Amino acid sequence: MKLSELGEFALIERVATGRGSAADPRVLRGVGDDCAVIEAGEGMLRLVTTDMLVEGIHFDLKTTSPSDLGAKAVAVNLSDVAAMGGRPLEAYISLALPPTLELAWVERLYAGIDAQAAAAGVSVLGGDTTASGRDLVINVALVGEVQAGQVLYRDGARPGDRVFVSGTLGEAAAGLDALQRGFGDEPAARGLVTRQLLPQPHLEQAAQLAASGLVHAMIDVSDGVAADLGHICAASGVGCRLERRLVEAATSEELRAYCRRRDLDPLALALGGGEDYVLLLTGDPALVGALESLHELGEITAADERLLLDGASGAATPLAGGWDHFGVL
Amino acid sequence: MKLSELGEFALIERVATGRGSAADPRVLRGVGDDCAVIEAGEGMLRLVTTDMLVEGIHFDLKTTSPSDLGAKAVAVNLSDVAAMGGRPLEAYISLALPPTLELAWVERLYAGIDAQAAAAGVSVLGGDTTASGRDLVINVALVGEVQAGQVLYRDGARPGDRVFVSGTLGEAAAGLDALQRGFGDEPAARGLVTRQLLPQPHLEQAAQLAASGLVHAMIDVSDGVAADLGHICAASGVGCRLERRLVEAATSEELRAYCRRRDLDPLALALGGGEDYVLLLTGDPALVGALESLHELGEITAADERLLLDGASGAATPLAGGWDHFGVL
Repeated sequence: MKLSELGEFALIERVATGRGSAADPRVLRGVGDDCAVIEAGEGMLRLVTTDMLVEGIHFDLKTTSPSDLGAKAVAVNLSDVAAMGGRPLEAYISLALPPTLELAWVERLYAGIDAQAAAAGVSVLGGDTTASGRDLVINVALVGEVQAGQVLYRDGARPGDRVFVSGTLGEAAAGLDALQRGFGDEPAARGLVTRQLLPQPHLEQAAQLAASGLVHAMIDVSDGVAADLGHICAASGVGCRLERRLVEAATSEELRAYCRRRDLDPLALALGGGEDYVLLLTGDPALVGALESLHELGEITAADERLLLDGASGAATPLAGGWDHFGVL
Repeated sequence: MKLSELGEFALIERVATGRGSAADPRVLRGVGDDCAVIEAGEGMLRLVTTDMLVEGIHFDLKTTSPSDLGAKAVAVNLSDVAAMGGRPLEAYISLALPPTLELAWVERLYAGIDAQAAAAGVSVLGGDTTASGRDLVINVALVGEVQAGQVLYRDGARPGDRVFVSGTLGEAAAGLDALQRGFGDEPAARGLVTRQLLPQPHLEQAAQLAASGLVHAMIDVSDGVAADLGHICAASGVGCRLERRLVEAATSEELRAYCRRRDLDPLALALGGGEDYVLLLTGDPALVGALESLHELGEITAADERLLLDGASGAATPLAGGWDHFGVL
């Protein structure tokens, strides 16, 4: 079977099965969460994550600047550390560069890497720089840490938990739409495009949430809320019911205005669009008010269900969505 | 200026300058050695390295099997940890996969990754699996550790040190030649091809060498002895004089026989060929006999020189060489 028939999530499921069950007793989590988690002594856990961005799949050099690209490659990894409630420490950068690139372009790429790392207090300590025959590829490996009592996994959701996100939804997907349809330079789309090209990892929000003791499960929104909440539900053995009016309230006026102009459904972007890089969490209802930017979306249930409820009509529809990188080729 | 004009080493020099000087006091080394080195408490240091292999640059899917490729991607990182005198702990794998690949092929790739990791006692803990539009790319990030008193850097070479390698030289380059010229299936080239496709990191030798207390500087031979000894000399502010008869004695009869058949110079392959993944070290003359597989090559001097001495003629020629991945495109 070709990978294009199998799909990305099925492939990851397939190759991840049986992994991470290493005999090393220091390893608390191997695969299957946003970071691997390893005991580091003195009550601390070490976090490690790695993400690869490939030209033509994750970015288009015609629509992103080198400094935005460098910053985003670091940011998506910072977001993984945030999703565990952690603090990032060190980044290791691998670059495969087509020889036709200008040195000045590569220096701007590194300037973006350095700026995003510095903003998060992260040291850029090394990596690998090599040639690529065709596509530009960036891999970032990030090491972080978290206090043992504050680490947040995907599998801690419990029936009765409320579901929250730490910021607005759907803007990154709308920004991608604007770039792909040539509206990226419109002033009214500027904020959306910036969400797509230069995501801001929610590290401070993550630290506050981890310290609150009220969060039971957390993940970052990279594949889209429907898919990422599905990951939490699958790992935790629970179901979920989101409310349409709450999801709509977690979108910005800028997104809704763009959707009206371009005849798009803001709800579809909010649930199915990826790359928002906000935090998606479940926990105590008292979280309302714990963090200003939290938006409540619905609840965790004991049933095997992933539903979107329409309060007005009373209808319940299945949550679906998720970004398959093999599917876009 | 295009990267193809600048060259790989100059690019690395350029982008590495000013890096790794982060304010974090736990960071003992950032860039510029085989691994970054970070204080981990209780007398231990954490080592981190990352290496990216790109289709068409580092491997050719027509001549490597998926399991060999997976094993090599791990092995080159294990070799970096060995070069610091360290012990590898955990590997994080990022894969960009063309959607036309067969699932069974990817499973064999992972089988090679797992086998090499297991042989080194390494846990494969996670990573990233994504699509690639064209080329297959593998990045491995490896975390290891070493006792604080046993770490070996590139910059410790001193005048009067003897220079050694922990195994024979030039075979990986001869194996690449055999593959590229269609002789890879010849029984007499089998060992050479295996050195190229399935390198064996010298982890046990590294542990013995680090524990001996006799080694002053160490690196692994990835770019070729001439280039890698150049890295030691530049970092240590010393020179070197290798003896031709000693370098020749560090080649195998299999290599010499292949060179006779194919009209190649074994000395050129031993000094300039990359990917041998043996250890190159300088230290106390008493190292002779400390490890059975050590071959002595020459000495470290106080002068600004990198020379090859021909004992018979008394001639001294400059050591040159090193593999530039941008140069091959």
